Amino acid sequence: MEKVSPDEAFASIDEQWSPHIAAELNGQAVKLATVEGEFVWHHHDDADELFMVLDGALTIELRDEPDVELEPGEFVVVPSGVEHRPVADEATRIMLFEPAGTTNTGNVTSDRTVEAERLE
Amino acid sequence: MEKVSPDEAFASIDEQWSPHIAAELNGQAVKLATVEGEFVWHHHDDADELFMVLDGALTIELRDEPDVELEPGEFVVVPSGVEHRPVADEATRIMLFEPAGTTNTGNVTSDRTVEAERLE
Repeated sequence: MEKVSPDEAFASIDEQWSPHIAAELNGQAVKLATVEGEFVWHHHDDADELFMVLDGALTIELRDEPDVELEPGEFVVVPSGVEHRPVADEATRIMLFEPAGTTNTGNVTSDRTVEAERLE
Repeated sequence: MEKVSPDEAFASIDEQWSPHIAAELNGQAVKLATVEGEFVWHHHDDADELFMVLDGALTIELRDEPDVELEPGEFVVVPSGVEHRPVADEATRIMLFEPAGTTNTGNVTSDRTVEAERLE
């Protein structure tokens, strides 16, 4: 049984907006990503998605309600079907919790679309 | 859509070893708990359980392999069926990810057994 130390894990994450699988449980995945700038608007048809900020700051922009501003330690669940766009004004480390197999850009395919790799 | 700020959430958590539901997604729950001392040995028949330390330090004792020592930010997944005992030498704040409805003492009923309440 191996613990995950995010500080060590992030040492092997270079690309922006590319979630890496740090752990899996109950059909869900814990993913780590470094992000900066604006992501793409998208939603997930069948997946609620939790965003937690580990370091930095993240804004979850939403179409029909006020943006959610996350500081380190804070998290929010974006329900399935809700269009959202994560934006980070600075280099930011985030943790995601969502069903294994969830694609980062949801219903949209763009140059940001990647398949999550498992961290070694 | 309401974010969760653990620092605020913990202000309303008094009891030790009593997980409170901070968010639910995809049939899973994110729970927060303050812990100190030794918990009871137990396992969960049908639930993998993630332990993450937010503040303090937690040891996950295991029967058949080395203990896992968690510092702030670190996490581990205890697979279903694996007997474990969380121990905290100091007051420690932890976050759990596990299926909604998981009982804190798993297969064991003791004076530590509680039903998780939802944070307001």
